[in-house]
Amino acid sequence: MDAEKQVETNKESDLKSKSSSKPNEYNERKRATSEQEQRLKMKMSKIKHKIAIISGKGGVGKSTVTVNLAAAFALQGHADKVGVLDADIHGPCVPKMLGLKGQKLVGGPAGMIFPVTARLGIKVVSMDFLLPSDEAPVIWRGPLKMRVIQQFLSDIIWGELDFLFIDLPPGTGDEPLSVMQLVPDIDGVIIVTIPSEVSQIVVKKAVTFAKQLGVPVIGIIENMSGFVCPECGVQLDIFKAGGGEKIAKDLLVPYLGKIPIDPAICVDSDSGKPFVAGNKASPAVKAFAEIVMKIKQFVKDK
Amino acid sequence: MDAEKQVETNKESDLKSKSSSKPNEYNERKRATSEQEQRLKMKMSKIKHKIAIISGKGGVGKSTVTVNLAAAFALQGHADKVGVLDADIHGPCVPKMLGLKGQKLVGGPAGMIFPVTARLGIKVVSMDFLLPSDEAPVIWRGPLKMRVIQQFLSDIIWGELDFLFIDLPPGTGDEPLSVMQLVPDIDGVIIVTIPSEVSQIVVKKAVTFAKQLGVPVIGIIENMSGFVCPECGVQLDIFKAGGGEKIAKDLLVPYLGKIPIDPAICVDSDSGKPFVAGNKASPAVKAFAEIVMKIKQFVKDK
Repeated sequence: MDAEKQVETNKESDLKSKSSSKPNEYNERKRATSEQEQRLKMKMSKIKHKIAIISGKGGVGKSTVTVNLAAAFALQGHADKVGVLDADIHGPCVPKMLGLKGQKLVGGPAGMIFPVTARLGIKVVSMDFLLPSDEAPVIWRGPLKMRVIQQFLSDIIWGELDFLFIDLPPGTGDEPLSVMQLVPDIDGVIIVTIPSEVSQIVVKKAVTFAKQLGVPVIGIIENMSGFVCPECGVQLDIFKAGGGEKIAKDLLVPYLGKIPIDPAICVDSDSGKPFVAGNKASPAVKAFAEIVMKIKQFVKDK
Repeated sequence: MDAEKQVETNKESDLKSKSSSKPNEYNERKRATSEQEQRLKMKMSKIKHKIAIISGKGGVGKSTVTVNLAAAFALQGHADKVGVLDADIHGPCVPKMLGLKGQKLVGGPAGMIFPVTARLGIKVVSMDFLLPSDEAPVIWRGPLKMRVIQQFLSDIIWGELDFLFIDLPPGTGDEPLSVMQLVPDIDGVIIVTIPSEVSQIVVKKAVTFAKQLGVPVIGIIENMSGFVCPECGVQLDIFKAGGGEKIAKDLLVPYLGKIPIDPAICVDSDSGKPFVAGNKASPAVKAFAEIVMKIKQFVKDK
């Protein structure tokens, strides 16, 4: 089992294997696929910068970082020009964090579908908007997940945006692979980690994943980096600290900064407010502002 | 897109679609598959109890809980009789947490393959043991992942065990679905969550997932539940607290208990020691002991 050679690609062969012996059906399917690819290219060409947020390991606060980056960009001159695609099909958390629970995608004339708009004019698309209830799990294998992500990219009227942030589920499986292969001219990936060594092993995999697919690594963010006890002011490293910077150096990829633990982040996420929109004095908010500057520099230099 | 109807099943149809028009090849493949199923049944029949650990959401400490449950069972009368299958193909963390980094699966006569043995005689199988380096990502779509999990179950000489804990990646996709469908007589699933509301939405999905597949829910564990500042002794709820118990009540499934945050857990995980094997005085260790009792009761009553 040689993992490095196992990057799966060819959509065409997938298509053929399903078409069995009916040439008309095959041609019809081919035409539909090609039309969808055209629509996808057209929609994506209106978005200046497309950035995927990956993590390798789950629960490092990837969705929290995505939502707060989107809000920070909206606050810093890009209001109404930022989108978030929640590509976590099994555990979509972005709507809850942006106060959009219970919303549905917005239909328009001639079958058009629009994203849901959150505060600061952030456009959001998520599997959550298609589910009948919170209890409903999406028990899907890979090919179905690829298809829904493709539809999110090709069939939703995103409009003209400066930035689209794509929140990917952990790992290097179907969803990340689909997004990397489907989104044309992706600017790069941001890798979120927590300081623990266990998480960092998985970060290495994420960096190799991006390199193998030819996608630039914009940088690594160390989340949940240290905690200052609000009672006594002592700095405590619950998940250790400094690991993100170290691994960025080791792997020769940029380091974007660290975000300290702040219990207000969890409270705000649960109540659907982007943390960076309040809490101006928090070191975590300042950390986000610095990270935004570095990302802007990256896409400018590209 | 109706998620509830989308439980994918039939391995047989998958087999046929790949066999194209050659009946011999099809029959050959069918025979090999049937032989593998026999081997799988035989191997699994020697293991008294099979328990999967799922979470819905990533990073709630599922692998940490799995490893420490395994160690706690080994310490409480099941030394050399506990196994851990790390079914997280993209981000296998179990070997690091049990001090087994760099180990490989053990070959024996006549092509036999044995698990790696950790302290307390815990038998471990993980994708990590097959990778050339930490950097190597496993860029695989679903069907390949299903196949490797099947091989782990059917082709590894697990031996006679009292308990096999299966650590699943987050979500309700290929790996969890494969394990639920492949493992005969699975005792049930344990669902790990953190107290935040965002995590709990995903727990609901995990419970529905288990119910739809007819697998009993052994109970919910609330991990990272509260934090006592070691400097000033004040109790701080970084990710809130009590959410796991509440959701267990709401969903009418058993509640197994809560495990408080203890920085020693991260330190021990990083250094490859099961936390429960030391730290006897820690409230987290006591919490694990109580959870073990409840699980033993569950499998006894079955």
